[in-house]
Amino acid sequence: MDHSPSTSLPPCCSKDEFRARGESRSAAVLGVCSGGSKPHGRDCERWSLCRRQESMTDDATRTLGKGSAPPGPVPEGLIRLYSMRFCPYAHRTRLVLRAKGIRHEVININLRNKPEWYFTKHPFGQIPVLENSKGQLIYESVIACEYLDDAFPGRKLYPYDSYERARQKMLLELFYKVPHLTKECLVTLRCGRGCADLKLALRQEFCNLEEVQNGPPSWPDAVEEVMQVPSLILGYQNTIFFGGDCISMIDYLFWPWFERLDVYGIADCANDSLLSCSCVNHTPALRLWIAAMKQDPTVCALLIDKNIFLGFLNLYFQNNPDAFDYGLSC
Amino acid sequence: MDHSPSTSLPPCCSKDEFRARGESRSAAVLGVCSGGSKPHGRDCERWSLCRRQESMTDDATRTLGKGSAPPGPVPEGLIRLYSMRFCPYAHRTRLVLRAKGIRHEVININLRNKPEWYFTKHPFGQIPVLENSKGQLIYESVIACEYLDDAFPGRKLYPYDSYERARQKMLLELFYKVPHLTKECLVTLRCGRGCADLKLALRQEFCNLEEVQNGPPSWPDAVEEVMQVPSLILGYQNTIFFGGDCISMIDYLFWPWFERLDVYGIADCANDSLLSCSCVNHTPALRLWIAAMKQDPTVCALLIDKNIFLGFLNLYFQNNPDAFDYGLSC
Repeated sequence: MDHSPSTSLPPCCSKDEFRARGESRSAAVLGVCSGGSKPHGRDCERWSLCRRQESMTDDATRTLGKGSAPPGPVPEGLIRLYSMRFCPYAHRTRLVLRAKGIRHEVININLRNKPEWYFTKHPFGQIPVLENSKGQLIYESVIACEYLDDAFPGRKLYPYDSYERARQKMLLELFYKVPHLTKECLVTLRCGRGCADLKLALRQEFCNLEEVQNGPPSWPDAVEEVMQVPSLILGYQNTIFFGGDCISMIDYLFWPWFERLDVYGIADCANDSLLSCSCVNHTPALRLWIAAMKQDPTVCALLIDKNIFLGFLNLYFQNNPDAFDYGLSC
Repeated sequence: MDHSPSTSLPPCCSKDEFRARGESRSAAVLGVCSGGSKPHGRDCERWSLCRRQESMTDDATRTLGKGSAPPGPVPEGLIRLYSMRFCPYAHRTRLVLRAKGIRHEVININLRNKPEWYFTKHPFGQIPVLENSKGQLIYESVIACEYLDDAFPGRKLYPYDSYERARQKMLLELFYKVPHLTKECLVTLRCGRGCADLKLALRQEFCNLEEVQNGPPSWPDAVEEVMQVPSLILGYQNTIFFGGDCISMIDYLFWPWFERLDVYGIADCANDSLLSCSCVNHTPALRLWIAAMKQDPTVCALLIDKNIFLGFLNLYFQNNPDAFDYGLSC
């Protein structure tokens, strides 16, 4: 389903993603983290320049759009991510790539002016997509993150224990309304309407993540074994992170939407603090989690400058074709 | 969201599940496959009787409903499945349990008259739920199946290769509309309305599973590398099963909805043959897959007798409280 530009967000992955059509300009820059391959043809010179001038993060590079030359094969020992700097789904994959220290290169895609060749990477032109040196393509952000955890050595982000792994996936199911609600809040606010009801719904989702406050609708009054329900919930399990006392996959899969609460305007206060956001002020364990997440080196490395993000949103909602490259110096 | 009894299906797992309220009678029988634990209290005698008289499949046992005694802990070396004989989501889990030869017991739940204690197993009283001897609970059918594959020895149903595993999960995303569409077809037909549009949509989903016939909406005309898109598709990859030449997890995760096409009345023909179903007569590779699936010993062992299934559906849509136990002899 496509939305009109004034009420939509860029297309990313998955069923509950944001979808839109492209009509923006194209540019051609490849970002490489810890080495990488060059693009073909006319983009080479610009690529070389930008490799020396990378700013913000290693993958903060100009988007490729319609008319750009397709990138060459992925070199052995690298994995490529097709991404967009402001997309929360791609953000998940970037967090996992960095947390695991995987050598990778990033190609940002102009989602309103998609390169013709990009439809050979994803049939609907969505991001994120991973491509390895065998030409294998992996999409859907959760699947991509799990693939990275499976296929690459080093620290495993999913727990080794089968039940704990299942528990993280059950938790992810509890989260499924949050991306949609945050998007709806943003669009509603940008259209100049109030979103109190959406915020209330979002707050309820956060309460669900923290603890079962009043029980589900049909919760019986006289159940002796209520606490046998799996300890999915942050408050109940009494740990800092969702997977325990260390950060793990589930925390990275949740984080992009929490990082955006403030810049999306869902945090009501003016003092730029997620911790006093009205959506999480009833969920103290979640607030502690947010604070702990902001201490994680991987999360810190990919934190998006609020002003740049706001600049992107302003241009995007004005349907300005420069939105996706906002804040880049080259 | 609850539906009125006349237009709904029993509640199972997951976001796209069927939900309904219970008002049926309760009964109390525990089914055990290859050994198992006894229920507590008044249900013991009946359980013993039925253990000697099991028919159809090992887990074809009467449901437990409101007022039933909660089952005891799961014995060491067993895993317990909370199920319902006609639920496609639970069917997935039963297929995996059997394909891997996992010793398990089954407790069928009366989904219109849920036992009070069942809300300690799943906060919303949905099925399927797995419970192990540590009291750990796992729900959501795909997560439960993956847990079984991870946690138990023997043949692995997911491929060992990380990319192949990711590919199966991408395929599952392609399938996500099928459960909802089959349910809608069934409900529409049972309400005496035509469902040609729904069948057409379902046929399109099956085409997507078989091959990209006309390309996605925005597919470019002049793309040289179209075939680089992952070979997700049965027809394109030229194998019998979705994971290759052997049956694997993805086949079992798809199967319950294909088995139901005929009994739901979505196959138009009167000759009881899935292979001539109008929904798959444009997808020859899918028809071959269906034929191959019907040869698999695990699939065969859990095939539901069509007359019994129809009996269940007839009673269910009459809101008859005996629906869930239809066809049981004890």
